[in-house]
Amino acid sequence: MENNEKKISTAVINRLPRYYRYLGDLLESDITRISSKELSEKMNITASQIRQDLNNFGGFGQQGYGYNVEYLYNEIKKILGLDKEYNLIVVGGGNIGQALVNYTSFEKRGFVIKAVFDVNPRLIGMTIRGVEVYDVDYMEEFVKNNDVDVAILTVPRSQASKVANDLASWGVKGMWNFSHVDIQVPDDVVVENVHLTDSLMTLFYKLNELYENEDFKSETSDDEE
Amino acid sequence: MENNEKKISTAVINRLPRYYRYLGDLLESDITRISSKELSEKMNITASQIRQDLNNFGGFGQQGYGYNVEYLYNEIKKILGLDKEYNLIVVGGGNIGQALVNYTSFEKRGFVIKAVFDVNPRLIGMTIRGVEVYDVDYMEEFVKNNDVDVAILTVPRSQASKVANDLASWGVKGMWNFSHVDIQVPDDVVVENVHLTDSLMTLFYKLNELYENEDFKSETSDDEE
Repeated sequence: MENNEKKISTAVINRLPRYYRYLGDLLESDITRISSKELSEKMNITASQIRQDLNNFGGFGQQGYGYNVEYLYNEIKKILGLDKEYNLIVVGGGNIGQALVNYTSFEKRGFVIKAVFDVNPRLIGMTIRGVEVYDVDYMEEFVKNNDVDVAILTVPRSQASKVANDLASWGVKGMWNFSHVDIQVPDDVVVENVHLTDSLMTLFYKLNELYENEDFKSETSDDEE
Repeated sequence: MENNEKKISTAVINRLPRYYRYLGDLLESDITRISSKELSEKMNITASQIRQDLNNFGGFGQQGYGYNVEYLYNEIKKILGLDKEYNLIVVGGGNIGQALVNYTSFEKRGFVIKAVFDVNPRLIGMTIRGVEVYDVDYMEEFVKNNDVDVAILTVPRSQASKVANDLASWGVKGMWNFSHVDIQVPDDVVVENVHLTDSLMTLFYKLNELYENEDFKSETSDDEE
């Protein structure tokens, strides 16, 4: 459970994609350098937090100059491992699975979905944006022959752990889990969960707290525009 | 920025849906009570963390007895505000928007999507699982007449902040944001982000770290099953 020396805290790691996203926006707007103060205002976190976060990776800022946007963008890209290519598959070709295959943002960022697997005969043989839906019986062979890095799991919760463990035993080391259950996997497998319902419940909690604090529900405020 | 006295930390709030999920599973399996130790093993967090978390809400455990599952489930349900009904709309009837309307887990939990809004004439007039897709021009009227609590935003990033602010000015206080951008909203509006690409990047980071540590990419390990 102890972090080893080079290990970066989960909180920092979770913020990296956000830095990457903002720096990408700056690049697109042809902004070549930015101070931690300016970046702080854009990202709505403190400048000191930004400096602290980025120091984890060797502190790319220069006093009086700020950060070189392109350099920092490319460094974070490397740190995130986005300079490499990954093979993805989707397991479960239902609504969420199909939506993810259709999600063009992924392609723009170089994440390529190689195949979809399902048990439903009505889906098998279909293609979604050029990606074929195969029978789940073919998954083992496909995985073993195609060096699959990440499985996107959108299977029913009752099957999620079994599927994840099968995939792990065939060499898939990354699970992006949309099943509404915490999957148990071997130690040498990494998991990132997207528990949509949990996220919505968190929103309801915050909303409910807001309503209670401000007594919103008892009033209407049509004229407040 | 200071927390007020009754405020519970974000970390605890973010764990609550998970407790709720596990307790719901226990209820379904007709388990009526559970010790923090047993719950700890199931949830893979320490028993002391569980006790600490649940103490935030008055400590429902009893020494030698453990937690009453149904009672705790219902208390967390109330804390999350899930004993109330919320009106939801989806703004953006594309892939993710449609998948969310089709996502039956929401209905089972009593989250009801009332309408979908889009600009695309090909989508307007369609129904998705009985939910109508309206022209976005009709959104203001609909929102004002239907006491909408939460807008699920799946619009392009360039439009997300404008849409969120329009909705906020019409009285929508909760934004579940799937747009790949951090939206700026008034202080009396709560936001929960689902940045899918950020989540996937975090997974790539972890995967890359794993590969580097274990030199996986340089070897194949077909015979390790």
